Amino acid sequence: MNDINNLSIPIRQYTTKKLVGISEQETIQKACRKMVEFRVGSLVVCNNEVVGFLTQGDIIERVVAKGLSYSEPVSSIMTRGLITADIDSPVSKVLELMQQHQIRHVLITENGQITGLFSLKDLVDPEKQLLETMISSE
Amino acid sequence: MNDINNLSIPIRQYTTKKLVGISEQETIQKACRKMVEFRVGSLVVCNNEVVGFLTQGDIIERVVAKGLSYSEPVSSIMTRGLITADIDSPVSKVLELMQQHQIRHVLITENGQITGLFSLKDLVDPEKQLLETMISSE
Repeated sequence: MNDINNLSIPIRQYTTKKLVGISEQETIQKACRKMVEFRVGSLVVCNNEVVGFLTQGDIIERVVAKGLSYSEPVSSIMTRGLITADIDSPVSKVLELMQQHQIRHVLITENGQITGLFSLKDLVDPEKQLLETMISSE
Repeated sequence: MNDINNLSIPIRQYTTKKLVGISEQETIQKACRKMVEFRVGSLVVCNNEVVGFLTQGDIIERVVAKGLSYSEPVSSIMTRGLITADIDSPVSKVLELMQQHQIRHVLITENGQITGLFSLKDLVDPEKQLLETMISSE
């Protein structure tokens, strides 16, 4: 039953290092194309440093539902208050943070710098195998 | 350690019965407004019976990235091949199905009729408490 111990290991193991960034001056349509091209549900918005975060849900709510033009800049709709967790935090703590804020993505920091992302979909990523391990050890 | 047994109990316990439906003739913008209003990431598309399924990801990929108008009907972009699981399937089997198809939503059937939805986000829904149970019993 070492499966459950997975939730106490560092989030490092399930962190995606392939952060996909976009400039805050780019258009919303370009942001969506990047999401599709890189098969991600969120983008880190950069202007030298990380200044925001943008998810599929933000685009549904702040663009399509409101009738905003696809050619507006990313800066007009991105989320500016970033929720982060240190890469050495246990998986359980990161999941608690996500429950608390009702979010599906957390930016992961290493020595205070954003270096990765943990997304809820990583739980069913066969390469990361957290759930597979749990399932197979039932 | 009865936590891990949660993955062998029926998906019934984690199934959302509040399916949000939309007519296939409605516009994409109306679909997005429904997603926001009901705080869901997907809609069941109906035309008397269920004829399709629509997710946030579909809108990003098939509408915004491609520059399709918000006023196109839902029928032009919905997914027609529905992936379903019986409400008595164990959670583990449904998660395997999601891994296999790389999807985050599965329609749940009861006596062959679609009656609910299991979405990956239900794993961090405090009301459903699957992960909370696992975390607290470490």
